Amino acid sequence: MAQSSPHSEADGLDVLFCPGSVAVIGASRSEEKIGHAIVKNILESGYAGEVYPVNPKADEILGLQAYSSVKDVSGPVDLAVIVIPAKLVLDVMEACGQKGVRAAIVVTAGFGETGREGARRERRLLEIARQHGVRVLGPNCLGVIDTVCPLNASFAAHMPDGGGQGFMSQSGALCVAVLDLAVAEGIGFSRFVSLGNKADVDEVALLRKWEEDEQTGAALAYIEGLTDGRAFLDAARCVAARKPVVALKSGTTEAGSQAVSSHTGSLAGSARAYQAAFRKAGVLQAQTWLDLFDWGLALTYQPALAGSRIAIVTNAGGPGILTTDALGHAGLALARFEDATLEALRDALPEAAAVENPVDVLGDAGPPEYAAALEAVLDDGNVDGAVVILTPQILTDVEGIAQTIVDVAQGRDKPVLGCFMGEETTSAGAALLNRNRLPNYRSPNRAVNTLQAMWRYAEYRSRPESEPEAFEVDGDAVRRVLDAACREGSPVTLVEVEARDVMAAYGIPLPPARLASSAGEAVEAAEEIGFPVALKIASPDVLHKSDVGGIELGLADTNAVKQAYDRILSRARQHAPEGEIWGVLVQAMVAPGREVIVGVNRDAQFGPLVMFGLGGIYVEVLEDVTFRLAPVTAREAEEMLDEIKAAPLLHGARGEDPADLAAIAEIVQRVSQLVCDFPEIVELDLNPVIVHQEGAVAIDARLSVKQPEECKE
Amino acid sequence: MAQSSPHSEADGLDVLFCPGSVAVIGASRSEEKIGHAIVKNILESGYAGEVYPVNPKADEILGLQAYSSVKDVSGPVDLAVIVIPAKLVLDVMEACGQKGVRAAIVVTAGFGETGREGARRERRLLEIARQHGVRVLGPNCLGVIDTVCPLNASFAAHMPDGGGQGFMSQSGALCVAVLDLAVAEGIGFSRFVSLGNKADVDEVALLRKWEEDEQTGAALAYIEGLTDGRAFLDAARCVAARKPVVALKSGTTEAGSQAVSSHTGSLAGSARAYQAAFRKAGVLQAQTWLDLFDWGLALTYQPALAGSRIAIVTNAGGPGILTTDALGHAGLALARFEDATLEALRDALPEAAAVENPVDVLGDAGPPEYAAALEAVLDDGNVDGAVVILTPQILTDVEGIAQTIVDVAQGRDKPVLGCFMGEETTSAGAALLNRNRLPNYRSPNRAVNTLQAMWRYAEYRSRPESEPEAFEVDGDAVRRVLDAACREGSPVTLVEVEARDVMAAYGIPLPPARLASSAGEAVEAAEEIGFPVALKIASPDVLHKSDVGGIELGLADTNAVKQAYDRILSRARQHAPEGEIWGVLVQAMVAPGREVIVGVNRDAQFGPLVMFGLGGIYVEVLEDVTFRLAPVTAREAEEMLDEIKAAPLLHGARGEDPADLAAIAEIVQRVSQLVCDFPEIVELDLNPVIVHQEGAVAIDARLSVKQPEECKE
Repeated sequence: MAQSSPHSEADGLDVLFCPGSVAVIGASRSEEKIGHAIVKNILESGYAGEVYPVNPKADEILGLQAYSSVKDVSGPVDLAVIVIPAKLVLDVMEACGQKGVRAAIVVTAGFGETGREGARRERRLLEIARQHGVRVLGPNCLGVIDTVCPLNASFAAHMPDGGGQGFMSQSGALCVAVLDLAVAEGIGFSRFVSLGNKADVDEVALLRKWEEDEQTGAALAYIEGLTDGRAFLDAARCVAARKPVVALKSGTTEAGSQAVSSHTGSLAGSARAYQAAFRKAGVLQAQTWLDLFDWGLALTYQPALAGSRIAIVTNAGGPGILTTDALGHAGLALARFEDATLEALRDALPEAAAVENPVDVLGDAGPPEYAAALEAVLDDGNVDGAVVILTPQILTDVEGIAQTIVDVAQGRDKPVLGCFMGEETTSAGAALLNRNRLPNYRSPNRAVNTLQAMWRYAEYRSRPESEPEAFEVDGDAVRRVLDAACREGSPVTLVEVEARDVMAAYGIPLPPARLASSAGEAVEAAEEIGFPVALKIASPDVLHKSDVGGIELGLADTNAVKQAYDRILSRARQHAPEGEIWGVLVQAMVAPGREVIVGVNRDAQFGPLVMFGLGGIYVEVLEDVTFRLAPVTAREAEEMLDEIKAAPLLHGARGEDPADLAAIAEIVQRVSQLVCDFPEIVELDLNPVIVHQEGAVAIDARLSVKQPEECKE
Repeated sequence: MAQSSPHSEADGLDVLFCPGSVAVIGASRSEEKIGHAIVKNILESGYAGEVYPVNPKADEILGLQAYSSVKDVSGPVDLAVIVIPAKLVLDVMEACGQKGVRAAIVVTAGFGETGREGARRERRLLEIARQHGVRVLGPNCLGVIDTVCPLNASFAAHMPDGGGQGFMSQSGALCVAVLDLAVAEGIGFSRFVSLGNKADVDEVALLRKWEEDEQTGAALAYIEGLTDGRAFLDAARCVAARKPVVALKSGTTEAGSQAVSSHTGSLAGSARAYQAAFRKAGVLQAQTWLDLFDWGLALTYQPALAGSRIAIVTNAGGPGILTTDALGHAGLALARFEDATLEALRDALPEAAAVENPVDVLGDAGPPEYAAALEAVLDDGNVDGAVVILTPQILTDVEGIAQTIVDVAQGRDKPVLGCFMGEETTSAGAALLNRNRLPNYRSPNRAVNTLQAMWRYAEYRSRPESEPEAFEVDGDAVRRVLDAACREGSPVTLVEVEARDVMAAYGIPLPPARLASSAGEAVEAAEEIGFPVALKIASPDVLHKSDVGGIELGLADTNAVKQAYDRILSRARQHAPEGEIWGVLVQAMVAPGREVIVGVNRDAQFGPLVMFGLGGIYVEVLEDVTFRLAPVTAREAEEMLDEIKAAPLLHGARGEDPADLAAIAEIVQRVSQLVCDFPEIVELDLNPVIVHQEGAVAIDARLSVKQPEECKE
C-alpha cells in the first residue's frame, strides 16, 4: 500500500477553491493561449479576490497589471495557477513557496504521464511544494471551477451553472465533455475538479473536503486508478454515510485495464476488488458516464427513496408497460395502491383512465389530471417514489404539466422523477423540470436505472453500523508457525500441517488429525482418531498432494492404513527423490455434506479480498462466487452466503435440511480476521469446507505467505 | 393459434401508403379537431393525389371542396381516413365499401380496446370491410406517414424527414414520442405506421410488405402482443434474411405482462418464447425505445459488420478506456493492428500519440490527424469496424473533424460510428455526422451496444441456411398410443410405459424395459434384461412414482426383484386403493454419467418451446437452461448445448472425457420433430437423460397430452 502523504487529507484545500488572491503564472495576452483563457475565465466567473497575471514579457493582460515574477506581486498570493513549460515549473514552484503561496494548480503537462524523466520531475515538484507547505493540484490538469466562491480557475471553454454536485475526474477530456454537456443541459455543480496526475491532491483529499461541504449534496468521480485504495475506501465510507458518492471506474475489463495502464501508468487494481471496495464504502458504481449525472441529479436534489415501491403516472399505456418492465428488471416493485388511492383516482380521472398502477391519465390529460394522479399516489402509504411519464400527444400542455408536477412534488418526502419522452415539443417541459431540480429522463429505463441507484443507496444507509467481530484467537501461535516457516527457508506455500496450525489458532474447525512419520505411528494415530481415516503426504516439496497420489481416503482398518502409508511414501519419493518428507497427516474422515469454499486473495490496492462460494464445479465452471474486502462483518458474511446463485442449496432447496449457515459465516469472519492480522498471508484457500446441518469443517487448508524481508535469500 | 385472416399478408397495402386519392371522413374546419389536422397534414406533406374532405356540415375545408358523404365524391377514392364517432364508423365503412374504397385508416377509438361492446363493433367493422375487400389500418390509431409517396395521413404534429427506416408501433403514444424525437434529431423514415388495434393490418402484413420495399433498409417495431406468433416468426425470418428487423417487445417481466393485458387485452406470450422467436427469426431485440434508433440508424445506413474486431480512434485516453471496457462487456474484440498500420500511425501522428488500439490522436488533433488515423485503421485487415471518439478540447475543430470522418468512411465496406461527447460545442458536428448517415452516439456504451447489435445480425446472416432434419420415425405407433390413451379415458399425463412407446417410436434411446404384472414376470423380465434392474410402478393413477415409494433401484438378483415387486405393489395399493394398477416396469440400470434434461412447453403464441439444460440443481436452482422454438435444426441443437453456463461440464471441464454431444443434440432434434408432428403433446420431459462418452439414454419420460375434442367428458 502506498505510504500516505503528509497532506493526504483535506488540510489547506479551501484555498484551492476560494482563495483571497490568484496569480496566473504564464498568463498571456495571446487569445489562443491557455494562459489567456485562464485569466479570462477567472475574471468572467465573477471572482471577487485579487488576480495577478505573471508574465515577464507583458505589462498588462486583460486590463490587469502583469508581474514578471510571482515574487514581485505586492500583496499576498493564496493560489497560483501555473501554465508554463514543464522545465520551468520547478523553479516557479520554488518561487511560489518563497512567496508564501498556499496552493498551486499545475496545468502544465509533461510530468508523470510522459515517462521516467517526467516522473522524476513530478517527484521533485512535490518535494519543493511540501518544503513550503504548498498544496498541489495536477500537474497535467484542466483546473478547478467553484461556482460557490465563484472562481473558474481552469481553461475550460464553459462555466457550468451552480448546483449541488461535486465532480472530480482523473481525465481532463472527460471534464471537458462533461462541461460541454452540462452547459447545454443546465446541469449544475458546486465544485468541479480536474485531478490530472494527482501528485498531491487526489480523490481522497477531495472526498474528505466534500464530506463537510454543505454546498455539495453528492460527490461524483471518474476514476482510472487510485494511489491508495484503502484510504479511498475509508474516505468514501465517511462521505457515503452523509451524502451519496457515485463513481465511474474505467478499466473494468481485461482489455480495458490494459488501456488504463498504458494511459496513466496508474495501477488499475482488479475490477472485482474495486467492486467490493465500492460496495463496502457505499459508493454507487456507475456503468456509463451519463449515469454519473442521471444518478447524481436525483441523488442531490430529490428526497431519498425510503423503499422500493414505485408508482407510475403516464398519459399512455405503452410507456407505462416499458417502465413496469424496467422496474422488474431493476429489482424494484410496482406499488400496489391502497383502496383510498384507487378511489381518489377514480374520482379525479375520466372513466376510461386506468387507476391501478401504472396510472394511465389518458392521452388528453392536462395539468389537473396529472396533479390529481400524482397527489393521490404520493399520498399513498404503499408508494415510496414516482415516475411521471409524458408523451406529447395532440393538445398536451407540456409545460403546464411540468409545472404541475413540480408543484405537487415540492416539499414531499418522496422522490419524483420525470420521463418526458420525445424532444421537439417536450424539451421545454423537460428543461422546466430540470430547472426545478426534478430530473427528467428521456427513457423509462434511465429513470428506473436512477431509482435503482437511489434504492441501493437507501439500503446502504439503512444498514445498521456493524463492526467486524473480534474473535478470541491465538495470534502468537500463528506468529510462531510463520516465523518457523520463514526460518527454515520453507517455500511460499505452507505445508498443510502448518496451515492447519494457523487455522486452528484462529478457531477454524478442522477434522482431528495427527502427523505420523512411520506406518506404525500412522496406525496409532488412526486408532486414536477413529476409523475410517484419510492419509495425506506431508512434505514441503509436495504441494499438489493429489497430483502425485499423495492422498488416500476412507481407510477403514489398521491394515489399510499401513499399506496406504507405504504406497504414499513410495510415490512421494518417486516424485521428489531429494525432497524433504515429514511423513503423512492422518486425518479423520468427515461425513458428507455440502461443500463450500472460503478463500482470500490480497489485492494490491485494497488488501485482502475474501471469497465465498460453493465448492467444486460451482467455483471452477460456473464462477458462482462472491467477494468482500476484509475485514468482513457478521452482516457482510451473511450477505455473502445469500448472494451466490446456488444459495438455495445451502438453505435446503431440494428437500434437505438447511446447512449450518452461522458456522460458515463464522469461518468467513475468522478467516477475515486472520488475514487482517497477518499481512504476510497473501493467499488462503479452505477448499472444501464441508457444511453439515450443525457445524462446518475445513477439510483442506492452503496458505501462501509472502516472506518478510529478513527471510529473503 | 389464431386463424389467419384472408388478408393477413401484404395484398393491397400499396394503397395504404400511396393512394391515388384520399377521402378524410370526419374532416373538420375547426383547427383543434383531429379531422382538421389530418387534412392539413396531407396537404402539407406534399401529397400529389386528390384529397376529399367529407363532412356533411361543411362546404369547404382548407380550400378543398367538402362532401357530405364519401359516396358523393365524383372521382374514385382509394384511401379513406375515418375520424368520426365510433358508433358511426360501421355505416361509413359500408359506404366506403360501396364507393369502392380500397383501404381505410380508422383513427377513431372505442373498439376492441374498450371492452366487450367495442370488440363486437370491431369484429363487425372487419366483416364489412372484408365483404368489400377493404384493407383496414386501426382502429384506434394515429395513421400512416409515407415520406416516399409522400403522404402524411395521420394527426401527428410533425412529419419526419425521409430515410431508410420503416417503423411500426402498436402504441400510438410511442409513435408521437418517436416522431417528436425524430424531428428534433433529424432521424428519417421511409414509412411510419401506427397500428392501433390491428383488426386487419398487423406486423405480419407490414413485414411482408417491407420485405420487398427498396425504400426501407431496416424494419423497426414496437410490439405489445402478437395475434399470430408463428406468422410473425415466418414473416420476420423472411425479412431478416434481407434486411435487419429490430423489435422492442414490452411486457417482458411478470408485472409488465400484467400491464400489457390490462392495456390492450392482447396476449403477451411468455418473455422466453418471444426471445426464442426473435432469435429464431433473426430479429434483434431492443431493450429500450432508444435502442430502436441507435441500432436502426447504423443498421440502415452503415455497411454490415463482418467481424467483431473494433478499432477505436480517440482524442482522449479516458473515453478510449471506457469504450474498451464496453467492448469487453459486449463480447466484441479490441482489434490488434497489423504492423503496417502501426507504422502508418506512427508516421502520421505526433510521437506522444498512442498508436496501439485505442488510437489516441491526442487532445490537439485536427482533421488531418483524425483522417490519417481512421484511414489507417480502416485499411487494416484485422479491423471490422471503428468507433471515432471526440471530446471537445480547446481549439478542437469539431465540424472539420466530423466532415473528415464522413469523407474517410465514405464508400468503405466497414461500419464507422461516431461518439462525439458533450453537447454545447459538439452538437453541430454530431448533426453533420448524422446528416451524412454516419450515426453519432453520445456515450461510448451506446455506440458499442449498437455495434453489438450489428454483430449479432451479421452472425445471424452468416449462418448457413439449415432445415430441421427429418428423422425416420414411426408416427403411426405414436398415433396408436395417443388414441389408446384417449379411448381409455386416460388422464392428461401418460403413464411412463406409454410415454416410452412414444419416445421409442421417435428413436429416442431408452434403457431396455418390460412391463411385468406379477412378481414372477418381473423376475423373468429382469433375467432377460440383465441385473441390476430398477422397478417402477406402472399405473395411470400413480403419476408421481417416487412420492409413493413406487421406484426401487439397483436390484441385483432374483430375490431382490421379487421383494421389491411386492413392496411397490403394496405401497401403490395403499396410495390408490381403487386405482388401476398395470404392474411394474422393469428397467435396466444405466451406468452413471452426466445428467441432462430435455423438455418441451407449448407456448400459446409460438407453439412448442424446446428446453435443454443440465439436470438436477442446474435446472431447479440455477435455472441454467436454454430454449429454442421447434422445429430445432441441428445447428440450433448444437448452439443450445453450448449456451448453458454449465456447458464446460459437458465438454469435460474437470478432466473427464467429453460427453457425447452429438447424441444429446440428436435427442433434442427428435423431440422437436415429435412435438411438431403431434400438436396434442403440450408438455414433455426427459429428465434425466444420462449422457455417456458414447450415447445418451432417457431414464424417465413424461408426456402430457391435451385431449382432442372428441375425448372430452
